[in-house]
Amino acid sequence: MDAAEFRRRGREMVDFVADYLENIEQRPVYPDLEPGYLRSLIPTEAPLEPENYEDIIKDVERVIMPGVTHWHSPYFFAYFPAASSYPAMLADMLCGAIGCIGFSWAASPACTELETVMLDWLGKMLQLPEHFIAGTHGHGGGVIQGTASEATLMSLLAARCKAIRRVHASIPENSEADILSKLVAYTSEQAHSSVERAALIGGVMMRKVPTDNSYAVRGDMLKKIVEEDKAAGLIPFYIYVCYSCACIKTICHSSCNELYVCVFQFCATLGTTPSCAFDHITELGPLCNEENMWMHIDAAYAGSAFICPEFRPLLNGVEFADSFNFNPHKWLLVNFDCSAMWVKKRADIIGAFKMEPLYLKHENQESGRHWQIPLGRRFRSLKMWFVFRLYGLKGLQAHIRKQVDLAKEFESLVRADKRFEICAEVIMGLVCFRLKGSNELNQNLLKRITESREIHLVPCQLSGRFVLRFAICARSTESRHIQQAWRHITQLTFELLQEE
Amino acid sequence: MDAAEFRRRGREMVDFVADYLENIEQRPVYPDLEPGYLRSLIPTEAPLEPENYEDIIKDVERVIMPGVTHWHSPYFFAYFPAASSYPAMLADMLCGAIGCIGFSWAASPACTELETVMLDWLGKMLQLPEHFIAGTHGHGGGVIQGTASEATLMSLLAARCKAIRRVHASIPENSEADILSKLVAYTSEQAHSSVERAALIGGVMMRKVPTDNSYAVRGDMLKKIVEEDKAAGLIPFYIYVCYSCACIKTICHSSCNELYVCVFQFCATLGTTPSCAFDHITELGPLCNEENMWMHIDAAYAGSAFICPEFRPLLNGVEFADSFNFNPHKWLLVNFDCSAMWVKKRADIIGAFKMEPLYLKHENQESGRHWQIPLGRRFRSLKMWFVFRLYGLKGLQAHIRKQVDLAKEFESLVRADKRFEICAEVIMGLVCFRLKGSNELNQNLLKRITESREIHLVPCQLSGRFVLRFAICARSTESRHIQQAWRHITQLTFELLQEE
Repeated sequence: MDAAEFRRRGREMVDFVADYLENIEQRPVYPDLEPGYLRSLIPTEAPLEPENYEDIIKDVERVIMPGVTHWHSPYFFAYFPAASSYPAMLADMLCGAIGCIGFSWAASPACTELETVMLDWLGKMLQLPEHFIAGTHGHGGGVIQGTASEATLMSLLAARCKAIRRVHASIPENSEADILSKLVAYTSEQAHSSVERAALIGGVMMRKVPTDNSYAVRGDMLKKIVEEDKAAGLIPFYIYVCYSCACIKTICHSSCNELYVCVFQFCATLGTTPSCAFDHITELGPLCNEENMWMHIDAAYAGSAFICPEFRPLLNGVEFADSFNFNPHKWLLVNFDCSAMWVKKRADIIGAFKMEPLYLKHENQESGRHWQIPLGRRFRSLKMWFVFRLYGLKGLQAHIRKQVDLAKEFESLVRADKRFEICAEVIMGLVCFRLKGSNELNQNLLKRITESREIHLVPCQLSGRFVLRFAICARSTESRHIQQAWRHITQLTFELLQEE
Repeated sequence: MDAAEFRRRGREMVDFVADYLENIEQRPVYPDLEPGYLRSLIPTEAPLEPENYEDIIKDVERVIMPGVTHWHSPYFFAYFPAASSYPAMLADMLCGAIGCIGFSWAASPACTELETVMLDWLGKMLQLPEHFIAGTHGHGGGVIQGTASEATLMSLLAARCKAIRRVHASIPENSEADILSKLVAYTSEQAHSSVERAALIGGVMMRKVPTDNSYAVRGDMLKKIVEEDKAAGLIPFYIYVCYSCACIKTICHSSCNELYVCVFQFCATLGTTPSCAFDHITELGPLCNEENMWMHIDAAYAGSAFICPEFRPLLNGVEFADSFNFNPHKWLLVNFDCSAMWVKKRADIIGAFKMEPLYLKHENQESGRHWQIPLGRRFRSLKMWFVFRLYGLKGLQAHIRKQVDLAKEFESLVRADKRFEICAEVIMGLVCFRLKGSNELNQNLLKRITESREIHLVPCQLSGRFVLRFAICARSTESRHIQQAWRHITQLTFELLQEE
């Protein structure tokens, strides 16, 4: 394919994309097929000779689309939002064309530098403490990670390295392996499985801290465990704090049994209030600082809302954190993958890989170079630049507020129906609700919802109760979709209750 | 931006991309600016109100392009190729529009299933042993990782977990921490720094095995070290084998001092022959199998060439490997990020994260789900599908062969000039050469080349000698660019020698 053909096919693809997104609500939001469906639809080997472009595009509809869960359908209310916007897609086209591998400053200076400045822009939008802003002379700064899991892992590795060095400096007889075997990290018993994975990868113990009756880790509880562990000869070094992980039990409908999908989502659970989330960081932070424990705050989904002044108080206490992370690719209109991570001290995270001192001398230029697992990186900051400029801060705030309003609208519909109950305070874009009655009843309702394929949502478990999660996801979701979804749910409920 | 505006802007962007790539050779291949150049060109904060699209596009030329190292310029001969093609870019547009987060089969079945089948297609192109092919009943299979570094880390973690379980099963008194502190991994003393990083992340010892005078690790040398380590109470569990890492010393020209960039590149060094690479895996493989050591083979760059029968013998011995990886995003026309990794036993790599047995029951459906560090993933296999079908195997082979021929053409030019010498056998797309004479002389030549900005290449060190690397990178590089590059180099050489 030469440039001339690319011009033609590129235009067609632009139209294909626009058509797809404009008409997406006419597609069943969730596929109706069995695992392994695709293999039989295409050859078992790559073709020897080139094929026609038209045949491939036909196969997109024949092979791919029937197997797509349409995350950008306005009737997609499952999991969490996957951010998407036209400006981000345009920027990604440019990113693909430039196609640089930004593994060092020299490998493409604009790639490293735009990223540093975009993370400053975004940090300022969130009113992050000054020490997280790189500026021209700062010691901290931001970096784009692929996912929140990578940010968690990076923060844990940086903390591990720092702790080993500190202990080794004070007691040089202790071997590295010896110190490693005594390190202990903490997380809430409610936390996401990726935290446990990070600890597993890093070869350190992870202890789960019990939560209070609003599912929050409190300062006194952490203090107690830390004291016990220290008395037992262990070395507390890291805590992972999340807004707030809800371990969500989904049903893999078409085929297999249950599987657990845990999503980072601000799911204020029973009795939790925004001020609790606030207290919680401000309680844990000083303790971590006293105990030389690295505090990593993960606000994967909720973080985007902190660009709105009315939500920003929820982030108070972030000044105690050593690192902070959230995913613009969830709720800030920047397509996946774009997870924004800030650290108080760049040297800590660069030092996690014990690079030569040579590198450390040039950390200003080398921003982004050693802050991550992969060496290569795409020019992802272009997406942020396009989105921030084409929406403006006000446009981004309007997006957040609109989606929160839609969640409140759905909440009102649920509350107005006495057969249902709301199971957690609705603070952002997630509504947890259920039919008053047994778990089985709710499971049956979800089964009908899923089988109808008109809307898509997944369940979660809260205090042993089977709860339906209704997350406002697609940028294209409007009030009429909420109303239609509710009509659909109540219709299925009516049928279900009649039969029961 | 609505769909109508996206149609217009999208078409403009397609033309922008085509114009950029068609005229790329008129741009200076390497930027002429100082670190920190970008910050002063844009505001310090995001705009409050939306900006005009035209202003942003103007800024692409004003702010971004001057800071881009143009990896797709036909005069870019630095580092390694970053694959790019129009079909891959079209597929990426589609990937962005679908915008699914493929963290489980249900989250978008097509995303998981196409990836599994594409890795089978590619594995068959490479004639990988049957146990690496997933098929419908296989125990192995492939997955797309972001980078080779992630593949290395994943293989090391899988090997670590397997070794801990094995040792713990035979000597249950041994604690996990105890076993971990005795595990030892091996790599060549020539290997890439990302291997050391993987060991550092995984908290295991990494020993570097001395190489013979052709820079290859030989079976007897490995056997000796393994025996010594076992006698010392250590547990050998992993070896990383690479085609062949050349630790490359680049000069970060514009600003800072030297920095080391190590690239995976088939750099057959002095005296190494293809049959050596062959012997080397077939020597190490049986030893690893005997000793229960996981063998991971990394052919990040070279792997693409194995789709050509004339290069495939270099991969003989891969049947002994537990995992194999190469980067289609280097040399197989699939844009970054697309690193292809195969494992002999899926259960090993899924088991690395000790997921619930529940998962293991469904490993067929859950392909790709737990084979990687990040949980979320883009629909990257679309790029492979478009590229494989629009080029066909023959088209891909033609691309590899053309680039190898261009390297040979450059080699002939160098050999015909008595002032120069070739420093390593030219097997694929890389020519290592230097002026006969001092390192300083060659450093001066490279300095002139870099400052002229007409072509871009980076140096390496081979046996203490400063060597210039000429890598065939861009898809658009033709014979006339090679000829022009050589005229340019000899002109600068002439001036240099005159002055000396």
